[in-house]
Amino acid sequence: MARQMKTFVMKNIGETGVMEKPVPEDPGPTGAIVRTTAALVCTSDTHTVKGAIGERENITLGHEAVGVVESVGSEVSVAQPGDRVAVNAITPCYTCENCLRGYTSQCQQMLGGWKFANIKDGVFAEYFHVNNAEANLAPIPDSVPDESAVYTTDMMSTGFMGAEHANIPIGGSAAVFAQGPVGLMATVGAKLRGAGLIIAVESVPKRQELARHFGADEVVDFTKEDPVERIRDLTGGDGVDSAIEALGAQVTFEAAIRAVRPGGTVSVAGYFGEGEYVKIPREDWGVGMSDKVIRTGLCPGGRERMGRLLRLIENGRVDPTPMTTHTFGFDDIEKAFELMDSKEDGVIKPLVTF
Amino acid sequence: MARQMKTFVMKNIGETGVMEKPVPEDPGPTGAIVRTTAALVCTSDTHTVKGAIGERENITLGHEAVGVVESVGSEVSVAQPGDRVAVNAITPCYTCENCLRGYTSQCQQMLGGWKFANIKDGVFAEYFHVNNAEANLAPIPDSVPDESAVYTTDMMSTGFMGAEHANIPIGGSAAVFAQGPVGLMATVGAKLRGAGLIIAVESVPKRQELARHFGADEVVDFTKEDPVERIRDLTGGDGVDSAIEALGAQVTFEAAIRAVRPGGTVSVAGYFGEGEYVKIPREDWGVGMSDKVIRTGLCPGGRERMGRLLRLIENGRVDPTPMTTHTFGFDDIEKAFELMDSKEDGVIKPLVTF
Amino acid sequence: MARQMKTFVMKNIGETGVMEKPVPEDPGPTGAIVRTTAALVCTSDTHTVKGAIGERENITLGHEAVGVVESVGSEVSVAQPGDRVAVNAITPCYTCENCLRGYTSQCQQMLGGWKFANIKDGVFAEYFHVNNAEANLAPIPDSVPDESAVYTTDMMSTGFMGAEHANIPIGGSAAVFAQGPVGLMATVGAKLRGAGLIIAVESVPKRQELARHFGADEVVDFTKEDPVERIRDLTGGDGVDSAIEALGAQVTFEAAIRAVRPGGTVSVAGYFGEGEYVKIPREDWGVGMSDKVIRTGLCPGGRERMGRLLRLIENGRVDPTPMTTHTFGFDDIEKAFELMDSKEDGVIKPLVTF
Amino acid sequence: MARQMKTFVMKNIGETGVMEKPVPEDPGPTGAIVRTTAALVCTSDTHTVKGAIGERENITLGHEAVGVVESVGSEVSVAQPGDRVAVNAITPCYTCENCLRGYTSQCQQMLGGWKFANIKDGVFAEYFHVNNAEANLAPIPDSVPDESAVYTTDMMSTGFMGAEHANIPIGGSAAVFAQGPVGLMATVGAKLRGAGLIIAVESVPKRQELARHFGADEVVDFTKEDPVERIRDLTGGDGVDSAIEALGAQVTFEAAIRAVRPGGTVSVAGYFGEGEYVKIPREDWGVGMSDKVIRTGLCPGGRERMGRLLRLIENGRVDPTPMTTHTFGFDDIEKAFELMDSKEDGVIKPLVTF
Repeated sequence: MARQMKTFVMKNIGETGVMEKPVPEDPGPTGAIVRTTAALVCTSDTHTVKGAIGERENITLGHEAVGVVESVGSEVSVAQPGDRVAVNAITPCYTCENCLRGYTSQCQQMLGGWKFANIKDGVFAEYFHVNNAEANLAPIPDSVPDESAVYTTDMMSTGFMGAEHANIPIGGSAAVFAQGPVGLMATVGAKLRGAGLIIAVESVPKRQELARHFGADEVVDFTKEDPVERIRDLTGGDGVDSAIEALGAQVTFEAAIRAVRPGGTVSVAGYFGEGEYVKIPREDWGVGMSDKVIRTGLCPGGRERMGRLLRLIENGRVDPTPMTTHTFGFDDIEKAFELMDSKEDGVIKPLVTF
Repeated sequence: MARQMKTFVMKNIGETGVMEKPVPEDPGPTGAIVRTTAALVCTSDTHTVKGAIGERENITLGHEAVGVVESVGSEVSVAQPGDRVAVNAITPCYTCENCLRGYTSQCQQMLGGWKFANIKDGVFAEYFHVNNAEANLAPIPDSVPDESAVYTTDMMSTGFMGAEHANIPIGGSAAVFAQGPVGLMATVGAKLRGAGLIIAVESVPKRQELARHFGADEVVDFTKEDPVERIRDLTGGDGVDSAIEALGAQVTFEAAIRAVRPGGTVSVAGYFGEGEYVKIPREDWGVGMSDKVIRTGLCPGGRERMGRLLRLIENGRVDPTPMTTHTFGFDDIEKAFELMDSKEDGVIKPLVTF
Repeated sequence: MARQMKTFVMKNIGETGVMEKPVPEDPGPTGAIVRTTAALVCTSDTHTVKGAIGERENITLGHEAVGVVESVGSEVSVAQPGDRVAVNAITPCYTCENCLRGYTSQCQQMLGGWKFANIKDGVFAEYFHVNNAEANLAPIPDSVPDESAVYTTDMMSTGFMGAEHANIPIGGSAAVFAQGPVGLMATVGAKLRGAGLIIAVESVPKRQELARHFGADEVVDFTKEDPVERIRDLTGGDGVDSAIEALGAQVTFEAAIRAVRPGGTVSVAGYFGEGEYVKIPREDWGVGMSDKVIRTGLCPGGRERMGRLLRLIENGRVDPTPMTTHTFGFDDIEKAFELMDSKEDGVIKPLVTF
Repeated sequence: MARQMKTFVMKNIGETGVMEKPVPEDPGPTGAIVRTTAALVCTSDTHTVKGAIGERENITLGHEAVGVVESVGSEVSVAQPGDRVAVNAITPCYTCENCLRGYTSQCQQMLGGWKFANIKDGVFAEYFHVNNAEANLAPIPDSVPDESAVYTTDMMSTGFMGAEHANIPIGGSAAVFAQGPVGLMATVGAKLRGAGLIIAVESVPKRQELARHFGADEVVDFTKEDPVERIRDLTGGDGVDSAIEALGAQVTFEAAIRAVRPGGTVSVAGYFGEGEYVKIPREDWGVGMSDKVIRTGLCPGGRERMGRLLRLIENGRVDPTPMTTHTFGFDDIEKAFELMDSKEDGVIKPLVTF
């Protein structure tokens, strides 16, 4: 009889639970099996359970994890059993048309690089399967602990992408809207790309404090002042070179368009969960002629990028662990999940250890 | 007493007329005076008169013209009296902060490179003044007649910009929404950038015919079929690499977002004249994570670019004159203007000769 | 006993011959077997035999071929037995670090994407094996015959790359040094990217004629005049925006650096076969401060790009077949090879049919 | 009689001296006069005197200075008399063809943006004239002292350009060859662009120490080990993503080509003063097919960029003053010049105060 393992699943819309599943034993020729050692709960896990991506039945949740390789397929040489590895939330095939075009997060179809807890079982389990392992397993340097490395799987990759897409000139100005974990990592990303002025928009004191810790020069509390006016004041009336939207809401998107100067870029790192439309304010968009650019993206994966993110931790450029506000054993994952859903107790990210 | 000249002006919102004004005599140290020889009427002239950019009093209309240099300032060496020149609709200063950033059409402020018939008198006059002439006067090669060269001042520059911003890969697929003069030149631009499949969306037969003449492989009549579905069919279900919006309307903008594949670019070349918002369809935008890019822009100017556009005519790559459906003498400019406003008689562009 | 097939091999440096080898029968999980239908001989095949890449023993030659799929591995879904396919000369894995960085022609190591007739048997055989078939098999549209499609596997991809890397502005000026098959396709590429002035440098009359046929506005015979001076004359003394080196020789490389204007790009599409160094003329390079850029590259592969190249043929943008000066049956491949080596009889490309 | 001022000039090749010249009084319509308050001596000043750019007679030396505006022309509004300003070493016109193309350092001709102490009097004088002042005067924030601000005029702009041109991916690896003042600022630039591993190549202990201070993770002493082998070792055998050449010598250029991985960029920030050719090692360049890129450039100017560089000082991102090893009054400028020429006493940069 197959070995069994514990998993944390979405039973169906609105319902989660712990369930036993067989340990995955066959990596297939191009895959790998990883034994989980640390994971993070993501707000999008809670969206998924509420039905954001439609019905799923008994799918294992979770997409942010590191672990130890258990087995690899015949075509995989990049890692061997026993190696510590980080696996990005997005695991593209790298051979479909969208991947070949360079849009690997859109593997096979729009958002199709997102496979964990979407089209296959996720990582909230004692073991998980990794497709296209040669490209998707990233060895973790010895000096980088799991609890740091696990942030490369989504928060650092997504937040930094927000900054990379924002086209920040060296010494330029950037505004980051919302300072949840993606926004905080976008703040770090803006600093890493050489922004000379970083303005974080956030009202929660703990997040404001972290924003300053991670590099914000100014923090604007939108409950106390109009953030667009404040940003214009801080930039001599011009607006910022680059704005990063890290919430996925009409109010921040609209403010980002208004706050960016002509020729500037609005980089979207948020997930827009509601409404038929996301609306561009026409006049602040220069009636379609302002040279403003709106970019979007989804957590870029692949071991080469992962290696660069891990190097930033290894060489002391970035320490993401101040975002870990809570830690749970895997036995208590339901509590971690509920906490992320309720956003109580000042939670930024709950770490789950195995 | 000052010499007088005839001009065609916007008296105030809703009212146009012919009026006498003094001939501009002093170019200033960095300017030039040009004697007009040919001009085109633009739909945006008709928008201006209806109040799209607010009230103006007795401002000379027109921003698409070529002519002969009458005089130049002390700091100008690029052209001399007697030289035939084309002057782009957009005449930036090239020394303000936005110009130095490379966003010359946003000179000094959003859309601020647009000076003719906006913040200074335009070109529907026997003479007109050109600011920052060293950068804004483009000598016309002998072999290029005025009636061709005049298209470089807006239609070719704007339409080609639509294609240049669209990030079309060599052999890639592009859809151009609307085939008015800007859309037709965007179709030419897509061909010039190496698109392997160009799909024009248009319902007016004369414009459909010109679209094919200028390089469209397929023409989709949106009154007869859903253009997004048709575009998907023509691209194996994927959508196009690049979509160019050349109308400035919600319906075409929205279709462009839907028609473009993940990672593709929507390039806006239209002027959005109405509504508080322009709306992005959230799901087809991949909830903000599709790697789709939305770019905007305003007719790039400057004599270096103008030189390249003129060269494309000179060397037989482009002949824009099939767009000239009507020709009027300057005495009949009111008729030309009315025709452009009514869009009757199959008008594409009315040429005005002096 | 294994089925046998005929192959044309490099026995060792300086020696070629026909030999029987077993038909490849096992595609492996990610590979495919293709039955060859048409192939082209490339000058680099002759270089290989002369020892340019070192010793090889009984390796099947050839890297430009189309054919019909015979079998595919378990992980391959993009093509099925019986499908007509083109396979690029470069067949990357798409999962190594260099591939993940986007430099797929440098798969695993410098130039490592080049596998046919280098690290595995090539295509001058009745059947050949394709690694990483999901990414490397490109279905051929029904309307594109083999003798056209086969040009996408190297000449079109390499020549166009020369133009794509050259950063040609729309309406800009480009010089293409040498009009062998790669240079001719670079000329086509420059036209496809919207160059307004294309200057081809070539002395052989047949190649000069083809250069004009494929889009050159001017042809400069370097045996009769100094090409750099002539290029400067043709560009008002400035030099060209972009220069494409399509020979791989000191003389053309040096001329390209001299002929390009400050800020311009020299795009290398040639193979530099000789010498310890390739030399940059220091002063014409602006003592390292001219903003001139030197790019290099190797025939980009992958079915997405191949699809775009095939579309350019399908939609009538490009017809490469005027380059086919000679046609041979596979039984006469030695004659084809000798002709390519001797460059006699005005040969551009010899086509081999199966 | 005209007011006289003291200047430090190149009398002719090989000879310098102090001389009196009339104070410039007329800025011209687009210029400005600046009273000098601080300046830096540059190694290129010493090259100029030795004849690197040919004969000059009694030209005032110096191109790195800040000061106070004395007067401005009628067309200048960006600064007023009494304003503290920094003026970049490069002062383009912004309206010639090369400027309009975006290559402002190549103003009018190759390297033509370099006007101070080249085609007009430089800044080693009590007053100096600034052409095209609207674009070239950068107001200095109150909180930034002259002795910091003066580094933006060349060292920071040139060194950072080295990093900006190097296409460093976030978390990527960069090697900087030579740690003179430009190299040190390239090291800072690499850190500002998010490099995850910075390797400085330098043998002088004081410069090694500053390299570490400014962000180098590793310092390689080329007198003790082969720098290319060491760089490969530090990058798992791959070579670096980006190499910055900050010396202008064959040995470092060649090492940079060898040290960069396929697809990587060699960014040249040095001035190559000798030899007819600069030589590319052919095999390490992948015989012209390695996707390696060689970029060049010359200190980008303009007040918008200067504003960003000043902001980096203002907001505490960069403090260049540790490079000031010596300070002299203007009366002692000959000593400062001689020190820079001899490179004695551990000099990095000598500051001259007025």
